[in-house]
Amino acid sequence: MRKEYMMTPGPTPVPSEILLSQARPMFHHRTPAFTELLVSIEEGLKYVFQTKNDVLIFASSGTGVMESSIANLLSSGDKVICCSNGKFGDRLIKINEAYGTDIVKLEYDWDQVVKPEDIKRELDANPDVKAVYVVQSETSTGILNDVRAIGRIVRDYDAVLVVDSITGIGAVECKTDEWNLDIVMTGSQKGLMMPPGLACVAVSDKAWAAAEKSKLPKFYFSWKKAADSLHKPAPTTPFTPPVSLIVGLGEAIKLMRREGLENIIKRHAVLAEAARQGLEAMGLKLFAPVEGRGSAVTPVWVPDGVDGGKFVKLLKEKYGITIAGGQDHLKGRIFRIGHLGYFDKFDIMTTLAGVEMTLLELGYPITLGIGIQAAERVFMEN
Amino acid sequence: MRKEYMMTPGPTPVPSEILLSQARPMFHHRTPAFTELLVSIEEGLKYVFQTKNDVLIFASSGTGVMESSIANLLSSGDKVICCSNGKFGDRLIKINEAYGTDIVKLEYDWDQVVKPEDIKRELDANPDVKAVYVVQSETSTGILNDVRAIGRIVRDYDAVLVVDSITGIGAVECKTDEWNLDIVMTGSQKGLMMPPGLACVAVSDKAWAAAEKSKLPKFYFSWKKAADSLHKPAPTTPFTPPVSLIVGLGEAIKLMRREGLENIIKRHAVLAEAARQGLEAMGLKLFAPVEGRGSAVTPVWVPDGVDGGKFVKLLKEKYGITIAGGQDHLKGRIFRIGHLGYFDKFDIMTTLAGVEMTLLELGYPITLGIGIQAAERVFMEN
Repeated sequence: MRKEYMMTPGPTPVPSEILLSQARPMFHHRTPAFTELLVSIEEGLKYVFQTKNDVLIFASSGTGVMESSIANLLSSGDKVICCSNGKFGDRLIKINEAYGTDIVKLEYDWDQVVKPEDIKRELDANPDVKAVYVVQSETSTGILNDVRAIGRIVRDYDAVLVVDSITGIGAVECKTDEWNLDIVMTGSQKGLMMPPGLACVAVSDKAWAAAEKSKLPKFYFSWKKAADSLHKPAPTTPFTPPVSLIVGLGEAIKLMRREGLENIIKRHAVLAEAARQGLEAMGLKLFAPVEGRGSAVTPVWVPDGVDGGKFVKLLKEKYGITIAGGQDHLKGRIFRIGHLGYFDKFDIMTTLAGVEMTLLELGYPITLGIGIQAAERVFMEN
Repeated sequence: MRKEYMMTPGPTPVPSEILLSQARPMFHHRTPAFTELLVSIEEGLKYVFQTKNDVLIFASSGTGVMESSIANLLSSGDKVICCSNGKFGDRLIKINEAYGTDIVKLEYDWDQVVKPEDIKRELDANPDVKAVYVVQSETSTGILNDVRAIGRIVRDYDAVLVVDSITGIGAVECKTDEWNLDIVMTGSQKGLMMPPGLACVAVSDKAWAAAEKSKLPKFYFSWKKAADSLHKPAPTTPFTPPVSLIVGLGEAIKLMRREGLENIIKRHAVLAEAARQGLEAMGLKLFAPVEGRGSAVTPVWVPDGVDGGKFVKLLKEKYGITIAGGQDHLKGRIFRIGHLGYFDKFDIMTTLAGVEMTLLELGYPITLGIGIQAAERVFMEN
């Protein structure tokens, strides 16, 4: 018998309640039963996104809604500011390039946070900027950008603030309305504890006004079509929805309401703190700077003398623990421990214990149990 | 106790083997286990599509891949021929309009088939046509267009033939390669017997050559990205795939291979014949002309004196049988019995029996059992 542990920042483990709910016999989506489910999910998503805005649901990966935030807001040649300090910031740039917008790039090293004052400077220098794109929680590095501070700046300009919170929502604080975040996006396989396949986007009034002027082509990802369907007397979706995933999302919302958003976010903060303390106690160096430490995923430098690729492989093969390595130029140089969604204390213990044993086996000098000890202290204090 | 019967042309009933497979614990998609699954699915889809071409998989509804067939093949202002004799033909026109192509429309009444000779005439008159769009099996009306004859024509021109076989694949014969169908698309919630949420598209070499010249923006639905990922040493998807649906698709492929494609298509033909004979025995008039009768869905005129809306509602409320009414201008005037995917003889019996009792209750003169009798004869002869 060998158990498998998926400690990755997406897909993430899915609670059995949600897994099994997807086995519910198929039913038609143009029915009162589906409408009732959709309405309750919509209310639940507003709760999770902390917004009064519509939260539109699409059958797609997170990248699909990222693309929708360009296709629905902009016209060819429109000027945008794209902030990037990781792979998903880079993806926002790439999608903008595919759509022919005029991009002001704010690029940072991957272990740096996006500087809100840089956005202010570029907004002042480019009064015709239509939208600012930023990732709140960078899955590729675990770094958390301060979208609250960015929201405080962008609200005073005409530009729409677009926040990729795919690894953020349900793991870190993301107050859509209070922080003036016009667009907030997430994917199902993250804080929502779901299988991948659904993505959601909250759209503010300021964003709707911009969307009205957009001339880029869209159809499947049309926000207007999705919102029009949602506002019908019997709310629905414009195209056949992924019924089994929608049923699963209904279960996910129930679980999240039961725990309460405040508790969920606190749980993630404690899990992340325990992971950090545990890893630092092992003598490892955290990748993220103090001001950019999020609760969704903890990135760590692979210590000198250890082969990063071998480390991730051995952890998987010997202990059944799947963690993520580095992406792009960080491949082999960092590893990332996911703890967003359906995670509890002992998932952190499991991972830390596996990391300790694997590091020792690969010749890194470590006192076994030292990371666990530090993590236990964090949990006992919280 | 009340059983529910979903006799609609999508979503369609899902076998328990598939429903339950989706409850498999979540696993990561960048793993050998996922690659192995994807490779076997890819082989299975080639079998089902009767093609050697790549069959690309997207998390989306069928409309998503319809859009991909425009975004990936064309540039703004390109000339296309769009055939429409139903709601989904109309949708192909609407998506083309959204992308600013130059559309030669071949529009027919919804109870007529697309005439291949009209396509030939327009191709001769418009030598710059880049693509011909046609729906094989119109979900809105059940009408089957002769894409084999259309393939025989279009192969001699530069234009790419794009076939929406969303309600076709797995229900009617669709020989992608032999019939020279460049693009063939389907959705998961049809002949594949799956929940909705996945869509597939087979792409021929001729289509790839056209795709290379395409300038319309795309990212999430990029065929190139999907194909590049599929052709890696460890085949994968460019973006996080909907793992639970992919697992379900693996089960669906197993079930389809076990029955055999030839048997599947024959089963559908017999089911459709039984439905037609049964309905005609009741004195009802079939909607589709003889030359356009498909096996996926059987459309029937609502008889004079019966309220179409009431009929569908009573059948659902009293007997738990969900069938589809007419769409757009056919609302209340026809009803549609779906029998594609996970359907067998007694599903037809159930529907016909429900139709008989409901018609009688609504004042239509009918000898109870007369439709069942006719259907039984069809099944005994086949």
